[in-house]
Amino acid sequence: MTGIDPVEAYLARVLAAIRPVEPVKLGLEAAEGAVLAADAVAATPLPSFDNSSMDGYAVHAADVEAATAEAPVTLPVADQIPAGDTRAVTVAPGTCVRIMTGALMPGGADAVIPVEWTDGGAAEARFSRPVAKGFSIRRTGDDVTAGTTLLPAGARLGPAQIALLAASGHGSVLARPVPRVAVIATGNELSEPGSPLVPGRIWDSNTYMLAAAVRQAGGVATRHRTGDDPQKVLALLEELAALADLLITSGGVSMGGEHDVVKAALSGSGTTLAEMSFGKVAMQPGMPQGFGLVGRGRTPLLTLPGNPVSAFVSFFLFGRPALDALQGLTPRPLPSLRAQLAAPVRSPNGKRSYLRGVLAPDGATVTPLTGQGSHQLGALAQANALIVIPEQVTAMAAGEAADVLSLP
Amino acid sequence: MTGIDPVEAYLARVLAAIRPVEPVKLGLEAAEGAVLAADAVAATPLPSFDNSSMDGYAVHAADVEAATAEAPVTLPVADQIPAGDTRAVTVAPGTCVRIMTGALMPGGADAVIPVEWTDGGAAEARFSRPVAKGFSIRRTGDDVTAGTTLLPAGARLGPAQIALLAASGHGSVLARPVPRVAVIATGNELSEPGSPLVPGRIWDSNTYMLAAAVRQAGGVATRHRTGDDPQKVLALLEELAALADLLITSGGVSMGGEHDVVKAALSGSGTTLAEMSFGKVAMQPGMPQGFGLVGRGRTPLLTLPGNPVSAFVSFFLFGRPALDALQGLTPRPLPSLRAQLAAPVRSPNGKRSYLRGVLAPDGATVTPLTGQGSHQLGALAQANALIVIPEQVTAMAAGEAADVLSLP
Repeated sequence: MTGIDPVEAYLARVLAAIRPVEPVKLGLEAAEGAVLAADAVAATPLPSFDNSSMDGYAVHAADVEAATAEAPVTLPVADQIPAGDTRAVTVAPGTCVRIMTGALMPGGADAVIPVEWTDGGAAEARFSRPVAKGFSIRRTGDDVTAGTTLLPAGARLGPAQIALLAASGHGSVLARPVPRVAVIATGNELSEPGSPLVPGRIWDSNTYMLAAAVRQAGGVATRHRTGDDPQKVLALLEELAALADLLITSGGVSMGGEHDVVKAALSGSGTTLAEMSFGKVAMQPGMPQGFGLVGRGRTPLLTLPGNPVSAFVSFFLFGRPALDALQGLTPRPLPSLRAQLAAPVRSPNGKRSYLRGVLAPDGATVTPLTGQGSHQLGALAQANALIVIPEQVTAMAAGEAADVLSLP
Repeated sequence: MTGIDPVEAYLARVLAAIRPVEPVKLGLEAAEGAVLAADAVAATPLPSFDNSSMDGYAVHAADVEAATAEAPVTLPVADQIPAGDTRAVTVAPGTCVRIMTGALMPGGADAVIPVEWTDGGAAEARFSRPVAKGFSIRRTGDDVTAGTTLLPAGARLGPAQIALLAASGHGSVLARPVPRVAVIATGNELSEPGSPLVPGRIWDSNTYMLAAAVRQAGGVATRHRTGDDPQKVLALLEELAALADLLITSGGVSMGGEHDVVKAALSGSGTTLAEMSFGKVAMQPGMPQGFGLVGRGRTPLLTLPGNPVSAFVSFFLFGRPALDALQGLTPRPLPSLRAQLAAPVRSPNGKRSYLRGVLAPDGATVTPLTGQGSHQLGALAQANALIVIPEQVTAMAAGEAADVLSLP
């Protein structure tokens, strides 16, 4: 990486280097959020047997053909079939069988009369209207026929997809699991929130923030913290590279020379297992960025800047798309819209700004927040959107329409 | 509940009966998705000390006042201060100190000159332009002053809010945790997906589907299955009521009399600890519904119909809002929009239909899927939206604009 990359070019480079995680066999609960690696095919039809769609009576339709309110037909109730009953029942002509929703249709019967249309009788039942053959019967395979592709490779498994797999008898599937992400903050200045602090040190917020953002995006996150010793940083990264699908560091990639521990760790002579490039992206916040592959498994590593707002914006621009790419998906961008600025904004020439703002519930206007410094979490915590100011624009007036990214 | 309730009236009744879960003290990771039960206040300012916003040199601005490219000023570098250094360093007039981003500002210095504007010298450094007092210094409290409300009671804790709490030293917060939901499917017909099946029995999909939907909505879910013995169903519900914040059953609430095990279990004489109402909601799918309070803790219970598409739609209409209400929040509706129908649709008079459809990426058109039966999971698994047809409308033509709910 040399010079300053535009945002899209940098993202494209990151995504191009990411290989999808290997598919594994996952039980249905573990498969939530996973992405099918092969078509899921229906081995059996769905439903797998003719069944009643109503609580009612299974009949020969011909037996109630002449039924009217004035001249109802009464039939003896020969049996009852609750859902789950696996007996092979047969309905003789001139009789009926009580049947519940989802229950196996008995032989002989060719329709079900809903209980609401009857007197609900137990020994015999009275019918005051006819029904067509096939009424209230769900036929074998009327949802899915055997051999049908239930879901194609590449489908992400949400509640409805999981339900279809389950209903079709798939107890497990071959799928790319949700990525495991190790989040690492570097710096001797970091202390654990809740512990006492002395001037010069700060409470770590980045590992908590990034882990939460990973989980919000559907990934699995672990948190790690290390000081400013490059050897220890490198050892930790190589260890975590074997355990995670993506590494995300924050801090240590600025202009501080040997004090930039992530750069130092990954640029030195001991780093035969890391292939990194550090550089700048034409954005604010978040200009210093690095990306590479670490360890024998060439685990992707995003080195985000340490300022928390910079790390946040960088994650949403590069980390979240990387999670999709790790599952073999085309990254889903944040929802984007146009909204009217409620106040003027400024932006440095040559950088794309991602200003923190509050998008009105109707999406019509967006209010830039006070406190746009890359360290200012107070404003970030109030924001529900990022206002995007293009590279060549240095100021926009209240009332102008701006591009806005909606935060999850 | 008597007669048929409109959707909104039923939802309002459910929500009115739900009390928010009790707040507990949660560590920051456990607090993801939780809702603050009390204002979080800044005990210390943020930043808690003056620090450098750049890698550079801390100087007395007066010392470089006359610096130009032609006549640079050279100052001896007396010390260096990395981030995390807690020493009380002082910069004597006529000297400078190398300083890294985030490091404690030394006494005496009143500005930081970015390293990019210098020769980067280690023993002495050359400055070719002046800076204003205060340049590149983040002042104590310029993000948040002590005593400020960081986040109000009722705030949901996402990545940015967690970061602000962490950065302000909060190791834990008092918050309403994400609700624990026990999902229970009833029916002797249910078998475990992956196991062999005989006619009359089906693979359970509802517990997998509903648990996935609960987790997708941010809740914690457990799955349970039971047969058609009302006493056992009641015992299970009472047991789970003590462990969960919300119970959701599927099945057993139809018109099958004693075969409707959930109704039977909760309407009988042994149910002194359940207060239930069963009835109908003017919707399709999902007409039979029940709601009540179970156990000594009066845990809310939603009894959804057993057809999987009915259970799915019911969860999104009633269960998901209930999760928000359990955290004391005003329920967030599914994103709603208007889109043009790509094909005609029909709907029963007097019921609001929620048809499964595919909303185009641009949101302009929505295509109703084939297979709108309440048991047809094949179509549900392809859908990304529900098309809402009002109660009094029985048909809409292609090209008409319809209300559409976007599924997550």
